[in-house]
Amino acid sequence: MTTMKAAFFTHNKTFRIEDVAVQPPGPDDVQIDVAYCGICGTDMHIFHGAMAHRLGDRRVLGHEMSGHVSAVGDNVKNIAIGQAVVVRPLDHCGVCPACVAGHTHICHNLRFLGIDTDGGFAEKWTVPAHTVHILPDGVTMEDAALIEPLAVACHDVSRGRVAEGEDVLVIGGGPIGVLVAMAARAAGGVVVLSEVNEHRLAIAEKLGFETINPTKADLKETILAKTGGKGADVVFEVSGSQAGIDSMTQAASVRGRIVMVAIHATPPTIDMFQFFWRELELFGARVYRPEAYEAAIKMIAAGQVDTETMITDVAGLDAIQSAFEALEKSPTAMKSLIKIA
Amino acid sequence: MTTMKAAFFTHNKTFRIEDVAVQPPGPDDVQIDVAYCGICGTDMHIFHGAMAHRLGDRRVLGHEMSGHVSAVGDNVKNIAIGQAVVVRPLDHCGVCPACVAGHTHICHNLRFLGIDTDGGFAEKWTVPAHTVHILPDGVTMEDAALIEPLAVACHDVSRGRVAEGEDVLVIGGGPIGVLVAMAARAAGGVVVLSEVNEHRLAIAEKLGFETINPTKADLKETILAKTGGKGADVVFEVSGSQAGIDSMTQAASVRGRIVMVAIHATPPTIDMFQFFWRELELFGARVYRPEAYEAAIKMIAAGQVDTETMITDVAGLDAIQSAFEALEKSPTAMKSLIKIA
Repeated sequence: MTTMKAAFFTHNKTFRIEDVAVQPPGPDDVQIDVAYCGICGTDMHIFHGAMAHRLGDRRVLGHEMSGHVSAVGDNVKNIAIGQAVVVRPLDHCGVCPACVAGHTHICHNLRFLGIDTDGGFAEKWTVPAHTVHILPDGVTMEDAALIEPLAVACHDVSRGRVAEGEDVLVIGGGPIGVLVAMAARAAGGVVVLSEVNEHRLAIAEKLGFETINPTKADLKETILAKTGGKGADVVFEVSGSQAGIDSMTQAASVRGRIVMVAIHATPPTIDMFQFFWRELELFGARVYRPEAYEAAIKMIAAGQVDTETMITDVAGLDAIQSAFEALEKSPTAMKSLIKIA
Repeated sequence: MTTMKAAFFTHNKTFRIEDVAVQPPGPDDVQIDVAYCGICGTDMHIFHGAMAHRLGDRRVLGHEMSGHVSAVGDNVKNIAIGQAVVVRPLDHCGVCPACVAGHTHICHNLRFLGIDTDGGFAEKWTVPAHTVHILPDGVTMEDAALIEPLAVACHDVSRGRVAEGEDVLVIGGGPIGVLVAMAARAAGGVVVLSEVNEHRLAIAEKLGFETINPTKADLKETILAKTGGKGADVVFEVSGSQAGIDSMTQAASVRGRIVMVAIHATPPTIDMFQFFWRELELFGARVYRPEAYEAAIKMIAAGQVDTETMITDVAGLDAIQSAFEALEKSPTAMKSLIKIA
């Protein structure tokens, strides 16, 4: 194949499918036949006009993908054609203070593949070999498309250092909130999920989580009653709302660890008195370290994720425009995948 | 002596000196002849009307004290009459979730001695034996009165895990800010202190600290330039101001640790995007653990605190009213001590 089909986002909520020349992989690259590529919340933000300056005139989006290796560069020795893989879409500079300190996932000059470069809503994706994780046998391509968002959740849980038997509160039950709840449960946490949308509450309950609708019950009092007056050892704020910010400081235990998963574009007001009074701790979390990818791959391979419930829609690449439009309007959707091959 | 002189705070910015009967120590108590007792920022807040509901009709304030043991209860075996001591003024319940988890200094039912009970602005102070720290030889009573606020600073530095060679920014150069800077320097930190008051800047410089006045230079750019674009590894917010809150997220490095030392009674707005973008970490800090007291005692004994510069005023117990009034108005005061004996 010397050309491939790719979905170019051309701004103004518009995708255009085109046939373009396939670039051969560079010496340190891996070329992948994309099988599935999920629609990330960030892709949806971009669809709505965010981050336009990072995209150029047009951009192939997509980074929550799975596929099989179709070609490797001359220097790539540990990855073979035909292997099932996923991509950790982070390309770091290696020389900035964050990279030097070992935090390459927060590189000052980080390039996010599929945003700052063309991504996985295309038949083939060529990426640096260091971003590729090889899958174990028995993982389906469809399930593997959940590994990227699950790695976000595993990184969040790692930032919160969830330990066996700890009381965990997840505020917000969208796709990432539910995956955080799953990763926290896999780490041994006793999880309660708070969400205001009844559709999402039903999904969380189907996935086996204790839930609370904070518009119907007092979140703080419920958590205190459930924990003998202690509060939640770890709280994940995934709602992105001021109400979530308020709840996180109210429901956390003494020395409670709060992980900031949501992206608050507008600075919220935060009850610093409670940080003092109970020595609360707050941890920002951004994407993932390689270990989080390995943890997510293990969870998927071990069947710890009910992928059937999580994947609510699958559409072909030609239908990407309507898939984005449908996801935008759906109150019940969790994960929408684009099936490429 | 069967009576003692004590300064009772009777609300409305008023102290009244009285002779009252001396209570003999209970079986688990230690009675101390108070030598010096410093005026804490919290005492000043109380002077201004704060925490009135915790004081009853009248209260002997004071907890930043030094003294010699004058009597011990029958069960007290490890403390002897005549020993030089300081008091860690925290009495915990031992049974709440925080105590059970080992965080007795954040006990849900914590009694702060000298606020919830009568304190050290008196000739004698009787306290539970478990709150007493014995001083090594050679520490003067005057210097020892700084141990309590220095223990606050040592606890803050412990919460921030300041390590050798790390870049530290202290925002706010009042008494606690300066002590935090000293404790961070003793822990190996390379400290910059930010303060807007020129009198306080001069004191910080006299104490050997690099300083910055953020109304005259750009704090973020200065810290970035000084650290090769990295930012401060640890930031202490001691200013209690929105400007300090804004600076703390701007000046911190990737994975920078921010310690919330100031008490923000009104919830400030905080740039959560920066917490996400650079995986910042925020740690609340409240009073001290016993280890912080031992660290503070070691610093004072080792001469690591320029107590002469820190102690700006000393007055007798009879002059406590004017000492509070003078401290209230002084732009240059650091620590005011009441000399009891």
